[in-house]
Amino acid sequence: MAQKHPITLYTAGTPNGWKASVTLEELGIPYNLEAIDMMKNTQKEPWFIKINPNGRIPAIVDHSKNDFAVFESGAIMEYVCDNYDSQHRLLPQEPLARSRVIQFLMFQMGGVGPMQGQANHFNVYAPEKIPYAQKRYLDETKRLYGVLEIALEGQEYLANNQYSIADIANYCWVKCSPYLGINLKEFPRVQAWVERIDARQAVQKGIRVPNDSGVKRLEEAANKL
Amino acid sequence: MAQKHPITLYTAGTPNGWKASVTLEELGIPYNLEAIDMMKNTQKEPWFIKINPNGRIPAIVDHSKNDFAVFESGAIMEYVCDNYDSQHRLLPQEPLARSRVIQFLMFQMGGVGPMQGQANHFNVYAPEKIPYAQKRYLDETKRLYGVLEIALEGQEYLANNQYSIADIANYCWVKCSPYLGINLKEFPRVQAWVERIDARQAVQKGIRVPNDSGVKRLEEAANKL
Repeated sequence: MAQKHPITLYTAGTPNGWKASVTLEELGIPYNLEAIDMMKNTQKEPWFIKINPNGRIPAIVDHSKNDFAVFESGAIMEYVCDNYDSQHRLLPQEPLARSRVIQFLMFQMGGVGPMQGQANHFNVYAPEKIPYAQKRYLDETKRLYGVLEIALEGQEYLANNQYSIADIANYCWVKCSPYLGINLKEFPRVQAWVERIDARQAVQKGIRVPNDSGVKRLEEAANKL
Repeated sequence: MAQKHPITLYTAGTPNGWKASVTLEELGIPYNLEAIDMMKNTQKEPWFIKINPNGRIPAIVDHSKNDFAVFESGAIMEYVCDNYDSQHRLLPQEPLARSRVIQFLMFQMGGVGPMQGQANHFNVYAPEKIPYAQKRYLDETKRLYGVLEIALEGQEYLANNQYSIADIANYCWVKCSPYLGINLKEFPRVQAWVERIDARQAVQKGIRVPNDSGVKRLEEAANKL
């Protein structure tokens, strides 16, 4: 199928989806947008499983590389930087600086993302109210925000005092903390860091992909804090 | 403090700890070993928080790089390969091949690791028996093993049909499936892949770091299946 741009992004308005769209917007890489309807389980259809065997958004296909498919939001961020960020704006080339970014990207992939995701499940979506699980994941999410608070001591960004995919990855989740009733006043450096990233035009554009319904729901939740 | 080798590994006998020790053993990199006693919460002590603000094992310190500290098991694997695997044995240099490895490393970091970890918590350790949570995480762990089963169709290893840190990362968790009563006969390609990796001398050495108590407990659990 002929595509207008070399990259197609399959996504939805979730923190993991935003990680991919914000990264592409920051680097000014044009992309074809395919919104995936998770209410219809489109991400579990056979054609999508060929792109991502895990049946999750986001995923990208790079038509300039023989339709190379990339899944897992963290892997998409690394791929896009390694292949399209020739100035190393979001992922430094120097090995130690690069590792500092990868460490906080992995921290989000293995910690903030899955734990806040479980907190959302038990506190917002689960059919049963299970206090043990609600508390377990809300507490762990806040503990992880406390680690970000430590990391931001004396620097404006998580790694190398320089904006990177480590910030984008963690921001996209922390930005959604109002759903859990977390008030970022508890984490003043994290709050200032979120505001710093909020001020970026590419970020505001990226979190409105595929549309602005996610941001609108978030504003409603934030107003209730 | 004078160190015998350039790298010190702080670890314990867990799947995440093994990811680091197996990687170092595979590459034949000598390291100083510091066993962390998690029963004593050593990983939460101030001196360790300076190495890893998240207070978790594993972590490494590279004395040859001005005591550069690396935390998050996935970031340790990338760091060690990028800086000490000059022949690219565990992480290919070619961009698409590299991305295939990173995709399955991220899949372990964001999926298999945290979900199997939660399955362990609710099925083995939690003070309350909560059927909803026990089933949720056991089902998700098995679903993720099903994704590995798809990935291993027609190839011996997860990425590029070539052994890599993607295999090590996922193996260290799947190897521990007997604790959840999962019988790998349900996933025949995964079972054959585990046996293939089990046969590697460096792996057998790495999963006995810091000692062989983890492997012994695992053998007991496996015998009960």
